[in-house]
Amino acid sequence: MSIILASQSPRRRALLEQMGITDFTVLPARGQEDMSAELTPEHLVETLALTKGREVAARTAAGNLVIAADTVVALHGEILGKPQDEADAYRMLQLLSGETHAVHTGVAVLRDGQTLCEHETTLVRFRPLSEREIRAYIATGEPMDKAGAYGIQGRGAVLIEGIQGDYCNVVGLPVCRLSRMLETFGVRTLG
Amino acid sequence: MSIILASQSPRRRALLEQMGITDFTVLPARGQEDMSAELTPEHLVETLALTKGREVAARTAAGNLVIAADTVVALHGEILGKPQDEADAYRMLQLLSGETHAVHTGVAVLRDGQTLCEHETTLVRFRPLSEREIRAYIATGEPMDKAGAYGIQGRGAVLIEGIQGDYCNVVGLPVCRLSRMLETFGVRTLG
Repeated sequence: MSIILASQSPRRRALLEQMGITDFTVLPARGQEDMSAELTPEHLVETLALTKGREVAARTAAGNLVIAADTVVALHGEILGKPQDEADAYRMLQLLSGETHAVHTGVAVLRDGQTLCEHETTLVRFRPLSEREIRAYIATGEPMDKAGAYGIQGRGAVLIEGIQGDYCNVVGLPVCRLSRMLETFGVRTLG
Repeated sequence: MSIILASQSPRRRALLEQMGITDFTVLPARGQEDMSAELTPEHLVETLALTKGREVAARTAAGNLVIAADTVVALHGEILGKPQDEADAYRMLQLLSGETHAVHTGVAVLRDGQTLCEHETTLVRFRPLSEREIRAYIATGEPMDKAGAYGIQGRGAVLIEGIQGDYCNVVGLPVCRLSRMLETFGVRTLG
């Protein structure tokens, strides 16, 4: 049995390694993410993770185990994806400033006929940011490829007063929940 | 002005770098930590950070800025330091299993006559651990040099259902609070 990570995110790769899973293959899902459906963020991330997982599972050999995930940032019902440009990053960071938002990650684990799909939510509280601080953070280049225009595992840590929930979930995978899901498939991350 | 980190912890060094501070010198405090005084954990970590900071400040040139810190894990009033051996690590992990404990980090910033000393507390919730999981985690070697016998930034992440507060504080430095303290000294981590 091989483990397949259906994501090209270097952060998800690092999180799997942090869990002690070092022998896996990366095989990103093809196709566009359809975020047009009117779903709650929790339902949306589960649906997107499952769609990615099924697409990749259909391309791999029988017996392989596929892990897929999707993360979104949500504030007051608005979903913040990756910023389109620096002005968009500025808009998002100004929205997040001084507020608590939710990060939802959906994760799907599939092998042959068996499928598990769950989500985890972490609350993130930003400190109030000045215009200067937002511009300085954008100038680091960190926001541009990240949902919500920040990276908690990078310079973005300075912006965050605190979180409530699983930290790794904000980075891209709910490692505690995922380790339990993997046990259902006979894959132990400890012992 | 030079920045001096009064700690030999590689994790604290990495956290300073994550904050964007790359030009600093490491100069650990000498002397034993005296944890015998009957202080609350919050008071204890501030006292220890201040003691380390003063000791190092006395050895550096005028004008240098010294950052010192101390972290303890506390559960039901008991302070858990670094485990003495594997049996001690087992005892600590069994205590933490299924419970929520507090991680307190005291941080002191000193330059010439000016001193700031604060602390930050983060709550950490462990999932219930089986004997097998505890033994497997100890076998990774990760617990032995860490307060409370776990590392949240390593394999220990799998053990943790969630936290409440600053994640970096559990790793060893409250980066959001520290960035504000540094601003008082004219050191900006953003912009």
